[in-house]
This record gives sequence, structure tokens and C-alpha cells, in this order.
Amino acid sequence: MTSRFAQNLKSPYYAVIFANQHTGDDEKKYGETADRMVELAQDIPGYLGIESTRDETGFGITVSYWETEEAIKLWKEQAEHAAAQEMGISSWYEHYELRVAKIERAYSGPEGR
Amino acid sequence: MTSRFAQNLKSPYYAVIFANQHTGDDEKKYGETADRMVELAQDIPGYLGIESTRDETGFGITVSYWETEEAIKLWKEQAEHAAAQEMGISSWYEHYELRVAKIERAYSGPEGR
Repeated sequence: MTSRFAQNLKSPYYAVIFANQHTGDDEKKYGETADRMVELAQDIPGYLGIESTRDETGFGITVSYWETEEAIKLWKEQAEHAAAQEMGISSWYEHYELRVAKIERAYSGPEGR
Repeated sequence: MTSRFAQNLKSPYYAVIFANQHTGDDEKKYGETADRMVELAQDIPGYLGIESTRDETGFGITVSYWETEEAIKLWKEQAEHAAAQEMGISSWYEHYELRVAKIERAYSGPEGR
């Protein structure tokens, strides 16, 4: 089961690391919006992949991968995504930390599986 | 509730992004080992913080933050951590992707909460 991984990405590339604590409000709409954002991100030129998970307390980490910083900017400014960011700020996130990073090197495993 | 975030880190710094699918085997030992690894990481000079979550299917993301690449190397080679990596490879991880990245910029929010 490897479909939730972003795999075989070619360096150099960038990551947006988004750690967040969900308030627990409005969960259905939040889930639909999150799914929609993944769909939309895939249409941005330079989108490479995404890894995302959340535990039962609502603490989540989503890492999206991008070819260039320009692609990240396009994604940040995408209209429907910008509206979702507003909802996140006003209703959905108790707290978040967002970091943009340049991937220096990558490994995968375990070998031979 | 912000204690699960790595906060107010001073650039430049590095992230180790570890996405993994747990096999579901040996969960108690795995949990104890994971907790122990967080304790040990804190003793490495240059350790800055960690963010970690896992959903009910066993898909987890852990991002640890470090002042330098040298600190990451010390952590990778720490003896008890090296033994845990072996256990991870042989028993605990169905698949993993590990990436080392340099943080370019960071934001937190929402503002005013």
C-alpha cells in the first residue's frame, strides 16, 4: 500500500509542510473542502504529490511537493484555495505552522519490499 | 493547544520529513520505541522540535527539525536510534519515504488567537 506516498520525485523540488490542529467544527464541510483542494492542486503546473494524515484528536500534517517556488505561489493564490484558506483561518484551525522547504535529498524503503 | 507544534524556530534550519505506513505489527513495542526516540532526539545538540501524527490506518507523518545537517547526521547515527531504524525496516514499516529539506520560510496562525 504505497498510494498515499509521493514517490520517485526528481530533485530539486520543494515541500510545503503544513501542521495543524483542527477545531473539530464543521467536519463534513472541512473534509469535502480538503478533498477538493487535493483535486485542485493536481491541476497546478509543477504539482508533484501530497502526503497527508490526521489523528483522532484532529492534529494533522499535510506535506505537498512542488517543482518550483513559482508553483507554490500559483497554488497559494488559486482562487478557490484562497477562499478555503480564509475558512481555515476563521473556523477550522485552532493553530497551524506552515513551512516552505527545499528538498536536499530523499530515501525510501524498506529495501526489497 | 499548541504543544504538538514546533514553534518560533530561527531560520535557517532543516526538516526531516518521514512519511510511513505502519504494518500494524507489534504496536505496543513500536509506540514505546517511538516515545523513547523523541526523548533521545531531544538530547542531540541542534535538535529543535518535532511534529508527528498518525491516522487509524497506520499512515503516519513525523517531521523533526534541526539546526544543522550535522545534527541530523548525529541523530541518524545515535546508537539506540540506529537499532530502532533496523526494527523499523525489518518489522514496522510497510513503506516509508524520508526526505531532508532546508526550511526557506515559515508562517504560523491563525493571527490573533
